[in-house]
Order: sequence, then C-alpha cells, then structure tokens
Amino acid sequence: MINVNVLYFLDLLGTAAFAASGALAGVQRRMDLLGVVVLGLVTAVGGGTIRDVLLGTLPPFCFKDENYLYLSIVVALLIFYFHHSLDFLHRPLLYFDALGLGTFLVIGTGKALAYHHGFLVAVMMGVMTATAGGVVRDVLSDQVPFILQKEIYATACIFGGILYYILYRLGVNESLTAVIAALFVVIIRVIAIHRHWSLPVAKID
Amino acid sequence: MINVNVLYFLDLLGTAAFAASGALAGVQRRMDLLGVVVLGLVTAVGGGTIRDVLLGTLPPFCFKDENYLYLSIVVALLIFYFHHSLDFLHRPLLYFDALGLGTFLVIGTGKALAYHHGFLVAVMMGVMTATAGGVVRDVLSDQVPFILQKEIYATACIFGGILYYILYRLGVNESLTAVIAALFVVIIRVIAIHRHWSLPVAKID
Amino acid sequence: MINVNVLYFLDLLGTAAFAASGALAGVQRRMDLLGVVVLGLVTAVGGGTIRDVLLGTLPPFCFKDENYLYLSIVVALLIFYFHHSLDFLHRPLLYFDALGLGTFLVIGTGKALAYHHGFLVAVMMGVMTATAGGVVRDVLSDQVPFILQKEIYATACIFGGILYYILYRLGVNESLTAVIAALFVVIIRVIAIHRHWSLPVAKID
Repeated sequence: MINVNVLYFLDLLGTAAFAASGALAGVQRRMDLLGVVVLGLVTAVGGGTIRDVLLGTLPPFCFKDENYLYLSIVVALLIFYFHHSLDFLHRPLLYFDALGLGTFLVIGTGKALAYHHGFLVAVMMGVMTATAGGVVRDVLSDQVPFILQKEIYATACIFGGILYYILYRLGVNESLTAVIAALFVVIIRVIAIHRHWSLPVAKID
Repeated sequence: MINVNVLYFLDLLGTAAFAASGALAGVQRRMDLLGVVVLGLVTAVGGGTIRDVLLGTLPPFCFKDENYLYLSIVVALLIFYFHHSLDFLHRPLLYFDALGLGTFLVIGTGKALAYHHGFLVAVMMGVMTATAGGVVRDVLSDQVPFILQKEIYATACIFGGILYYILYRLGVNESLTAVIAALFVVIIRVIAIHRHWSLPVAKID
Repeated sequence: MINVNVLYFLDLLGTAAFAASGALAGVQRRMDLLGVVVLGLVTAVGGGTIRDVLLGTLPPFCFKDENYLYLSIVVALLIFYFHHSLDFLHRPLLYFDALGLGTFLVIGTGKALAYHHGFLVAVMMGVMTATAGGVVRDVLSDQVPFILQKEIYATACIFGGILYYILYRLGVNESLTAVIAALFVVIIRVIAIHRHWSLPVAKID
C-alpha cells in the first residue's frame, strides 16, 4: 500500500500548493518580495508548526527537515516573478491544494493519535494542520479568515478526521487508514469546488 | 474552604460563558457554522492554551481533559441554532463571564507561581489566561481587540493578580487566596458593567 | 572584543526602542493605558518569545529574566504619559531601533546555531527575533504588518543572518561574528532610512 516515501511526496506536493496559494494572496495584496515569501512560507508550514507547538513536539517538523522551507520559498519566488505567465496553473492548483488538504489532515490526526491523544484532539490536530496556515495567511493580510466564512473546506477535514479515527479504532492497517481518509477529504473537496457548496450561516435580523 | 471540585465547576462555568461570547461574535459577523464553533472554542480555551505554551507545560490543559473542548463546542452549537430564543441570557451571560474572568485569572496566576515564576510573569499569566482567548477571537474577526480599547476588563485581572501574589507571599492558605482574588475580580468587573467605567486614552492632537 | 555584558546592554537598549515603537503605535490608534502597555510589551519581547516557542526553549527568555518585561512596561508608561514632550526623541529612536534590529538578529541566529539548527532555520530565527514582535503589534492594531509591505527592514536582517552563518561556518570567533553581523544590519538599516529604499512590488494589472 502507501509507504513513507509516497506520503512524503504527497506532503511536499501539498506544501508547494499551499505555498503557491499564500504567495498569490500576497501578490494580490500588492506586498513586496519579502511579504510574498513570508505569506507563502506561513501558509505552507504554519499549520504543521502550530500543531507541533500544541503537541509539544518542538522544534517543529520543518526545523528538522528544511526541505519544506526551501520548497516553499522557491515556489513563492516563482509566483512572485512569473505569476502573469502562470494563469494556466489556476485550475491544477485547486486540485493540488485539495491533495495537500487530505495529506495534511492525515499527518496531523495520525501524529496526535501516535501521542495517545483523544478523539477530539486528534480531529482538531488534523484540521489544524490542514487549515491553520491559511488562517494565519488571512490574519496577516488583514482579512477575516477564509475558512471562518465560506465553503466546505475545513468541514471536509473534520469528517476526514472522524473517518480516520473510526478506522484507527477498528484496527484497520495504518497505511490503509491514511489512504482512505485522505482520499475522502480530496473527493469531498473536489466535489465542493465543482458544486460551490457552502455551510449555513446563522440568521440575524 | 474552596476545593478542587468547586474550582473545576467554576472553571467549566467560565468556559461555557466564554464559549458563548465567542460564538455570539461569530453569529454577529455572519460566520458559518464552523466559524461560530471555532470562535467559541478559541475564546473559551485560547487563553489557557497560550499560557501553557508559554509556560512550556505542553500539551495544553484542554488536550489532557477534553471536557473543555466538548463543552465549548456544545455551547457554540446552541448559540448558533438558538441565539434568537436566548435573548433572556444576555444579562446572566455578562455575570457568568465575570465569574469566568475571576476563575481563569486565579488558575493562571496560581499555575505560574507553582512553576516558580516571578511576580510579573505570575500576574501576566493570570491576565493572559483570562483575556487572550478574547484577543484571538477579535483578531480572527478582523477587529482591534476589545481589551486594547475599552473598559475595565483586563485591568480588573491585573489587580486581581497582584492581590493573589501578595496573599501568596504572605503565606495565606492557597484556597483562601484563590477565593479572595477571584471574588475581587468578579466584584470589580460587575461594578464596571454597572457604571460603564473605562480607562484613560492618551491625548493626540 | 564584545562580551556578554555589552550584548546584554545592547539587548536592553533595543528592547526599550522596540517598546517605544509599540507604545507609540498604541497611542496613535487611541488605545487606552492598558492597550499601550500591551503593544509596547508585545513589540519588545514578542519576537524573542515566538523564537523560544519554536525552538522549544520554554519558558521564554523574558520569563527567566523579568528585566525585559519591567523595562518594556516602564518605557510604555513614559510614552503614554509624556509622548507630547518626547518629539525630540523621534530621530534617536529610529537609530536605537536599528541597533535593536541588529542585536536581536544576532541573538536569534546565534541561539538557533547553538541548538544545531540548519542554515535556513538559523536565518529565520534571527529575522523572527528582530521582526515578529512588530508583526504581532500590527496584527493587534488591525493592520497589514509593516514588514510585509514596505522598506528594507526585514531584508537587512536576512542578509545579516546569512553573513552571520557564513562567518560562523568559517570558524570566525563568535563575538567577532556577532559584532560584524549586527553592525552590517545597523548600517544597511540606517542607509535605508536616509535613502527611503524599498523592495520591488509584484505587478498586477
């Protein structure tokens, strides 16, 4: 089935997609070169870093393996200098982003369970790994975070995390658990992109 | 005097009140279901979590006892679906919030002192436990944090923390210290609500 | 050459300058007394604190030596009450701020290398020590962080960090390395102030 190398490859692919989305947000906000790189970095590795801070597994993953940092910086630089010629990437990026979402969720939930945390913490760590980088990106861009406002984005992660937990408790093989939960998130997310699903908003009058 | 169970009960009551205030902020900002739950959670457990990160006592309290998380989520869901019928709770919520403020302050200052920190750190950890969740709530809602702008809110905590430290140094029984400092914060806060007290603002021209 | 006392003195001088810049931002945003003190504190010790959280060296430096906290609070109080009479400090403050930038960079990069981190982490920890407090200040003031938008500020730190790393790898004496890298940052920064240098912004149309 899945092995560590495949998961690492998917992780890097997701990291690159998240770095691209962060860098693009910086370009759109007319930030300078450094701002674009910072937003790319924060979006790509921010979620996993916050997870590691909360789990107390410090220093965070990207300090131990600097490839995540180098990759994010290179992607952000490419976006900064060539974003005009990269329009054809817009659609593929959405799918890579969905792939990153599923991979990050699985890594976060798996890590929390490996440290013997309970159900809710496991799901939250998965969701946070997948979405907290984007939240920091939006806070730094002085906007209400995207995931607090629209679309089935974090929601796909929540259900993916619950699915992971159930399979884990049922004793399903760890690799299979990861594949199923990640695919679940990716599929929900892709359908949501196509159908423009969103969550209900509370009525105030 | 006070015992651990009473403090735990007050802690949960304060957690619920803080979760309600966070969730209400989300409803008012027209966030979706997930946004409301996230704001409720962050407001309720954010202060204690940041305290535990800074003290290095990781994972944070709410990872070891998930009741805080379940309670915050349930309260946020109730606010999301029933906030129209909960108007009668507006006034009681302010008082529960004051109770939470006093309880959180006492827990934070007490924990810092148990880890042998100095005066200023002890007071700051108390104030942070009581108010940092609200600061994160406001940052995520894209607003200048409430406590940086108005009302005797954190100020009541600061003086409560100083009082706690003095009683602690005088060798007063720990439970009694906690009760007195918490009551002090609650009373100041309740008077401030009634009298609309606020701090001076620097004059610029 | 440089010794620990000189570095400690420069560190406190930089802390005071950063606290002043944070407190002034609070005054300009019409915050109350507490808000001004919080912004001063966060700007002065926020960068080093976030560095210590990420390196896992908790509790952070300013919890172990409360002088940083007392100094920041006193400076913020002075700014709050006397900012009208302190106009003559505007120019000197810019230079003290540059000094703080160089000192904080050197402390952060040096600490990361002492913990055996790689090149990129060492540079990032230096830059973060010098600039993250300002980022938090701007987020709390509900603004897009200054360093993401304009001027050679963090950029001077990045090149200072790279210089530090190279000298360190070449086996240059640690004190000399610190002096050279810090001076480099200060000089670049002072020139940037005089010439109004800024980084390129990505073109969008």
